[in-house]
Amino acid sequence: MEIDVLEGIFDANEKIARENEALFLKNRVFTVNLMASPGAGKTSLIANTLELLRDRLRIGVIEGDIASSVDAEKLKVYDIPVVQINTGGACHLDANMIRQALDHMDLGALDLLIIENVGNLVCPAEFKLGEALRAMILSVAEGHDKPLKYPLMFSDSQVLVVNKTDLLGLGDFDMEELRRVVLRMNPDIVILELSCRTGDGLPGWADWLYDKTKAF
Amino acid sequence: MEIDVLEGIFDANEKIARENEALFLKNRVFTVNLMASPGAGKTSLIANTLELLRDRLRIGVIEGDIASSVDAEKLKVYDIPVVQINTGGACHLDANMIRQALDHMDLGALDLLIIENVGNLVCPAEFKLGEALRAMILSVAEGHDKPLKYPLMFSDSQVLVVNKTDLLGLGDFDMEELRRVVLRMNPDIVILELSCRTGDGLPGWADWLYDKTKAF
Repeated sequence: MEIDVLEGIFDANEKIARENEALFLKNRVFTVNLMASPGAGKTSLIANTLELLRDRLRIGVIEGDIASSVDAEKLKVYDIPVVQINTGGACHLDANMIRQALDHMDLGALDLLIIENVGNLVCPAEFKLGEALRAMILSVAEGHDKPLKYPLMFSDSQVLVVNKTDLLGLGDFDMEELRRVVLRMNPDIVILELSCRTGDGLPGWADWLYDKTKAF
Repeated sequence: MEIDVLEGIFDANEKIARENEALFLKNRVFTVNLMASPGAGKTSLIANTLELLRDRLRIGVIEGDIASSVDAEKLKVYDIPVVQINTGGACHLDANMIRQALDHMDLGALDLLIIENVGNLVCPAEFKLGEALRAMILSVAEGHDKPLKYPLMFSDSQVLVVNKTDLLGLGDFDMEELRRVVLRMNPDIVILELSCRTGDGLPGWADWLYDKTKAF
């Protein structure tokens, strides 16, 4: 009985996600669903991406949080369209939340839309939003053993950004082991290493994202 | 309709949680529900706690993960009762999972039971397990702005362990700001700072937990 209801929720989400996807396609907006644990660096990566790409692409951001507008405030300085979604307790964004946020965004004026999901390695992976790219961040501070413990997000993302590489060597993070395990689960995933604090690797990420956006 | 079903789930969980609680009381087992983001240091804190307290207390551990037995394996060296729960996708433990795990644990032989919840700052806070103490970890690498973004766990825990204090100064983590915000949300919470890597602050945590266990 309860499983039926859950299936209903997933089906309804899937349907709205497909409608969002059609809308993004029609407007030629490349949409990224950015997922990670709390504090892995989602907002920092977005800020750095804006810094590097806003002269070359028209970018909008949807910020997802359970409460507060802390993240949207941080992006104010960039003077781009930002919509904050407060889920009011829900641990992930869903396609219907995105549809409602799109009422406040002019898709015709965008090339790239970055959606920052709620900080959570679990539930966001289960709800498609209509995105063209599923991106996740793992921070070096979290440890290299996370793929085995949170398999869905690692197996379902198209790009894994390993952030906070400036912390490599301080703990026992094993990059080779991470790559080995992730590529076994998801052979096509692109793995990029960077540090939002030092800037190392950021141009590579920005160029990669620029090419993906232009090819859309 | 869907809300009714959810309320049903929460009610059923509440009922089983109370039964677990009664069982812990009857057996005089002090039970800790340990919650945090992925990679904040839950398993490391448990390992260090075992190191410091296993000669003074009889300790058991229940490990909760979506998949794998990575964490339980890490605790093998301590030769204590460990039960691994795999939630098979669920983003939190619930009271019924704990009840089932207790079939594999001799409560009469324990003083302290530590339950490591699934790495997630959101959903675990919504499901009581029957615990006497709700403890959470925030790692310095996650940033001091998390209480505003994940309010339930911070307002509902009785102790906040700030881990990875060896990373203070490398980023912009503001401990005073964190304390101010958390204490405004939850004036009775105990905040302890430590580093599982350097060992700083661990004896203070162990002594505090020992006293709580003995007073139960």
